[in-house]
Amino acid sequence: MENKKPFVIWFTGLSASGKTTVSEHLKRALLTRGVSSVLFDGDTMRKGISKDLGFSDEDRKENIRRTAEMAKLVALSGVNAICALISPFIQDRQSARSILSDFHFVEVFVNTPFDVCEKRDPKGFYQKARIREIIDFTGIDSIYEKPENPDIMINTENKSPDDCVRVVLSYLKNNEII
Amino acid sequence: MENKKPFVIWFTGLSASGKTTVSEHLKRALLTRGVSSVLFDGDTMRKGISKDLGFSDEDRKENIRRTAEMAKLVALSGVNAICALISPFIQDRQSARSILSDFHFVEVFVNTPFDVCEKRDPKGFYQKARIREIIDFTGIDSIYEKPENPDIMINTENKSPDDCVRVVLSYLKNNEII
Repeated sequence: MENKKPFVIWFTGLSASGKTTVSEHLKRALLTRGVSSVLFDGDTMRKGISKDLGFSDEDRKENIRRTAEMAKLVALSGVNAICALISPFIQDRQSARSILSDFHFVEVFVNTPFDVCEKRDPKGFYQKARIREIIDFTGIDSIYEKPENPDIMINTENKSPDDCVRVVLSYLKNNEII
Repeated sequence: MENKKPFVIWFTGLSASGKTTVSEHLKRALLTRGVSSVLFDGDTMRKGISKDLGFSDEDRKENIRRTAEMAKLVALSGVNAICALISPFIQDRQSARSILSDFHFVEVFVNTPFDVCEKRDPKGFYQKARIREIIDFTGIDSIYEKPENPDIMINTENKSPDDCVRVVLSYLKNNEII
């Protein structure tokens, strides 16, 4: 299991696009194949290691740096990582890729349409952002820079999490990452 | 492998006491038993995720908090962690234990005598601290609070890394952690 070069799968996309759900399903699917991984989820990080950070551009940048550095420490130990963060800026994602250049880095763009994400709004964030109860919210008053050339693109609008996982697994197999 | 409650082994001790060496040997020994783990080493962390931090009491505290939160994310994913940091203050180590209270937390005090550590001085830190080229150095001008009741105590003065690893493995087995 730990003989292959570790991989880091980086999910990027709007809030409520399905990043966490798909990454949790992916983690389980990998484990049934004997491939273990560590999951770094944006919301969980915000409650712990990044609880000193807000949502300004600078703080988002620092949050992404910490996630990439954590994934690096995990990968250096021979363990795979899955990161699920909005990570709205191209430059920050490139920086993550650069920090992780010794490993397989797979950028997955969860390209669920904005309207669908806003309609889902499981945590009421979009609604709060619309009435300015929260600010710097990606897609409302902070931009999301779409990946120009992601390794994988998925859309959770009409696909189940397991459908999306199959796309990721195919990529990993076809590229001999797993 | 991932059915057991994950463990976090926390090595504390002076610089050059042998924390990193023993933890690297431990990681390999665990792997030959089919138990994988992620290693968070103080020096490596300082080059990456904690490169914004210095060695003031506050920054040491923050470095330990980040390490504990990282180990938590790893453990939440079902993977074990080994942390090797000087972590000189009792309060900070207690805080790490508290952050990791949902998991097995094993404090290993690497109780190699100060004189031995200073004589080893593989990176020249003790020498630099003596002539004040570096400050806030544990054991010279910053204190090390010995653990009062560590789970395990080892001394690398007259024992090989593998001898020390055997002590840790015995503890883990006797306590049904592995």
